[in-house]
Amino acid sequence: MRYEPRTMRLPRLSRPLLLPVVLATVLAALVPHLARAAGDPHGVDMLPILEALVLMLIGAKLGGDLFERIGQPAVLGELLAGVLVGNLGLVGYHQFETLRTLPGVDILAQIGVLFLLFGVGLETDIKKMMAVGASSFIVAVLGVVAPMVLGYFVTGWFFPEHNRLADWFVGATLCATSVGITARVLQDLGRSASTEGRIILGAAVIDDVLGLIVLAVVAGIIQAADQGVAFEARSVLWIIGKSVAFLAVAIVVGQWLSKRAFRLATRLRGEGLLLSVALAFCFGLAYLAGRAGLAPIVGAFAGGLVLDEVHYEELRERDHAHRSLPELLKPISTFLVPVFFVLMGMRVDLAVFGRVDVLGFAAVLTAAAILGKQACAFGVLEPGTDRLAVGLGMIPRGEVGLIFAGIGATLTIGGQRVVDDRVFSAVVMMVALTTLVTPPLLVWRMEGSGGKARGRR
Amino acid sequence: MRYEPRTMRLPRLSRPLLLPVVLATVLAALVPHLARAAGDPHGVDMLPILEALVLMLIGAKLGGDLFERIGQPAVLGELLAGVLVGNLGLVGYHQFETLRTLPGVDILAQIGVLFLLFGVGLETDIKKMMAVGASSFIVAVLGVVAPMVLGYFVTGWFFPEHNRLADWFVGATLCATSVGITARVLQDLGRSASTEGRIILGAAVIDDVLGLIVLAVVAGIIQAADQGVAFEARSVLWIIGKSVAFLAVAIVVGQWLSKRAFRLATRLRGEGLLLSVALAFCFGLAYLAGRAGLAPIVGAFAGGLVLDEVHYEELRERDHAHRSLPELLKPISTFLVPVFFVLMGMRVDLAVFGRVDVLGFAAVLTAAAILGKQACAFGVLEPGTDRLAVGLGMIPRGEVGLIFAGIGATLTIGGQRVVDDRVFSAVVMMVALTTLVTPPLLVWRMEGSGGKARGRR
Repeated sequence: MRYEPRTMRLPRLSRPLLLPVVLATVLAALVPHLARAAGDPHGVDMLPILEALVLMLIGAKLGGDLFERIGQPAVLGELLAGVLVGNLGLVGYHQFETLRTLPGVDILAQIGVLFLLFGVGLETDIKKMMAVGASSFIVAVLGVVAPMVLGYFVTGWFFPEHNRLADWFVGATLCATSVGITARVLQDLGRSASTEGRIILGAAVIDDVLGLIVLAVVAGIIQAADQGVAFEARSVLWIIGKSVAFLAVAIVVGQWLSKRAFRLATRLRGEGLLLSVALAFCFGLAYLAGRAGLAPIVGAFAGGLVLDEVHYEELRERDHAHRSLPELLKPISTFLVPVFFVLMGMRVDLAVFGRVDVLGFAAVLTAAAILGKQACAFGVLEPGTDRLAVGLGMIPRGEVGLIFAGIGATLTIGGQRVVDDRVFSAVVMMVALTTLVTPPLLVWRMEGSGGKARGRR
Repeated sequence: MRYEPRTMRLPRLSRPLLLPVVLATVLAALVPHLARAAGDPHGVDMLPILEALVLMLIGAKLGGDLFERIGQPAVLGELLAGVLVGNLGLVGYHQFETLRTLPGVDILAQIGVLFLLFGVGLETDIKKMMAVGASSFIVAVLGVVAPMVLGYFVTGWFFPEHNRLADWFVGATLCATSVGITARVLQDLGRSASTEGRIILGAAVIDDVLGLIVLAVVAGIIQAADQGVAFEARSVLWIIGKSVAFLAVAIVVGQWLSKRAFRLATRLRGEGLLLSVALAFCFGLAYLAGRAGLAPIVGAFAGGLVLDEVHYEELRERDHAHRSLPELLKPISTFLVPVFFVLMGMRVDLAVFGRVDVLGFAAVLTAAAILGKQACAFGVLEPGTDRLAVGLGMIPRGEVGLIFAGIGATLTIGGQRVVDDRVFSAVVMMVALTTLVTPPLLVWRMEGSGGKARGRR
C-alpha cells in the first residue's frame, strides 16, 4: 500500500490558478515606477509562533511515536523532543533558541495545560475524589515536609558557610508537586480515576496551597531577618484566606452555577454552546484561582471536577453531533497539550549539566527531592492502594520549583544571595531530572513489571 | 422543566474536601512567624488573558443568540458584542479597555482566523475553485482598481489642498478585501462552496497579492517623490516573485507533500496524528505565506484547499473515533474563531464617530469603498451567478485597510503627512462600517428577500 504508482496530475491542476498569478505579475511589471515595500503589514508577529507550532507538532508526534514503540508514554517523547530542539545550540545550531522564550508560545502552552487539567477533572468523579480527601491531605503535607527537611540538611551539609535560613529556602524549592506530568501519564495509562490517581491529583491541589504558604512564610522570615522588619502576619493569613475562599467557591458555588449556566445556555440559539459555556467556566475558575494566588490549573481542574454530565445532557442532545464534553475537548487538547510538554522540554537547558562544580550538589538535591516525596506513601489510608505509585506520582517538581528558586535569587541575607548561581543551576537540574524520571517510573509501577509484581486491577 | 425543586445537596458534598482545607488553615496559623508573599509565582501573566476569554466566549454566544433570533448570522452578534464591550469606556466603565490591546488575545484571535480559513479551504474543492479562477482574477482586479479610483476622486474633492499622490494613497486603503467576515458569513449560510462563494474566496486571495503590490508601488512613489530617491524596481519585483512562488509552492508542492506526509504519519504510533499533521501543514503554509509577505490566512486557506480527504482516509480509519478533519477542527474553531470576531468588534472605536469634522469625509469614503467593490459584479464570467452577491461579499476591508492607513500616517510628502488624523479616523470608520454592513447585506441577498427575488438554488 505504501508506494503504489500514481499519475502525476498536479501541475495540470494548478495551471488555472497559476495563470492569473502570472498575469498579475506581468501587469505589475508594466507599472512604470516600482518601489520599496513598506515593511510587514501585519500586527503581532505571528511568524515565529507559527514556526514554533509546526516544529512542536511534528516533534511531539515523532517523539511520541518513538517512545510508544519502547513502551513509554507519549509525553516522555514530547518532553525529549523539546529537550532536543531546545539544546541544538550545543551543537552550534542556534536557529530555534528564541522560540523557547516566545511569549505567544508560552500562552498557548499555558492554555494547553489548562485543557489537560480540565479534562482530567472531567474524568474524575468529585465524590470519589472527596472519598480519598483525607489521604490526599496527609500525602500533601508529608510531601511538603519531608523533601523540605531533607533539602535543608543536604544544603547545610554541602554549604556549611550558608546561613541556615537560606538552607530552609532551598528546602522549600523541593515542596511543590507539578501535577501536569503525572496527570498526563495517568491519562495516557487510562488511570486518572484510579484510587492512586485521585489521591495524587487531590494532593497536588492541596500541595499548591501549601507551597504558597511555605513560600510566603520562608521568604517573609528571610526578608524580615535581613532587613530587621516586623513580620506581617496579616498578609499570610490573607493568602490562606484567599486560597480557602477560592476552593470553597469552586466546589460549592461552582456546582450550583454550572447547573444554572447550562440550563440558561439551553435557551440560547446557536452552535457550539456546550463547549463555549464549559470553556467559559474552565477559564473563569482558572482566573479566580489565579486571583487567589493559586496556579490557574488548580482552577481548571476544579472546574472539570464540578462539571457533571447530567448538567449538560439537554445541551448535548441539541447539538447535532451529540458529542460529550470530553469528546469535544479532545481535538483542542491534541493541538495544545503537546505544546506545553515540548516547551517544558525546550526549557531544559542541558548546558547546566556541564557545570561540574554543581553536579554533586545537584545529584544530592535530586535524591532529596525524589526520596523526600516517597514519604507520601505513608499518608495513604486506603487499604490495597499502591503506596509506591503515589510516591512516584508526586516526584515531578516542574516550573514551580524554578519559580521558587527565581524568587530566592532575588533575596539576600547578610549580603549573600539566598539562592546563588550554583544552587540555582542545581535546582534547574533537579527540576529536569524529576520531570524526566517520573513517566518511566510510573509506567514501570502501574503497567510494567512493577505493577505485575503487586497484581493488576 | 426550568425550575423544578431540587434537594440542596451541595454543602454536604463539599464537606469532605473543605475539611482538609480548614485543617491546612489552622496548621498554617500555628506557624509562629508569618510574612509577606513573594509576588506572583507564575510566568506570563495569564489572568488578563483568561478574563478576556471568559468575556469573549460569553459575549459571543449572547450576541450570536440575539442576532440569530432576528435572522442575522451569529458573526454579526459576535462583532457587536465586541463593539459593546470595547466601548464601555464611553459610559465611564474602563475596566475592559486594556483587553483589546492584549498581545495574548491577539495571538489567539490570529490563530482563530487561521482555523476559520483552513476550514473554509477544506470545504472548498480545489478543482471547482480553479474552474472560476478567471472570474476570481477579474473580480479581484476590478475590486482593486474601482475603489482606488473612486477613493482618489473623493479625497481630491474633499481636500483640494492635498498633493494628488496622497489622494492615490487614500484610494489604496480601499483596495484590499478582508476575507474573514465573508468567509464566516458564507460558512454560517452553508454557501462556502457555491459559485459566488468560490469566486469571492479566490478573488480575496488574489486581492491580497494585488494589495501588496499596490501598497509597495504607491508608498514607493510617494517616498521617492518626497526624498528625490531613485525608484527601486527590484524590490517590487521581489515582492511579486515571492507571492507567486508561495502560491506555486502551496498548490503544487502542497498537494504532493500532503499525500506523503499523511502516508508517513500512518506509520507512526500515537493518538491524534491526523489532526496534528493537518495542523502542522496549515501552520507551515501560513508561515510560508507570511514569509512571502502575504497574510498568513492566505496560507491557511491554501492548506485547506490542497488537503484532500483521500490523502488521510487511512489515518482517519485508524483513529477510534473515525472523525474527518472538518469534524476535528470544529471544536477548535468553536473556541478560537469567536475570539477573532469579538476582538475585531472591540477594536471598533465608537469615539471616532463623535468627530463631526470627519463624518462627512468618512461617509463619502465608505460610499466609495462599498460602491467601488460593486464593480466586481462585472468580472463574473459564469452565467447564472448572482453578481450582486459577489459585489457584496467583497465589501469588508477589515484590518488590511487600517494597516495601509497606519503606513500612510508614517509617510510625508512636501512636509505634510499623507494620511493625517482626519483621514485616519475616516478610514477607521470606513473599516468599521464595511465590516458591519456586510453580514446583513449578504444574508439579505443569499437567504432573504433579495435571494428569493432571483430564485434560490
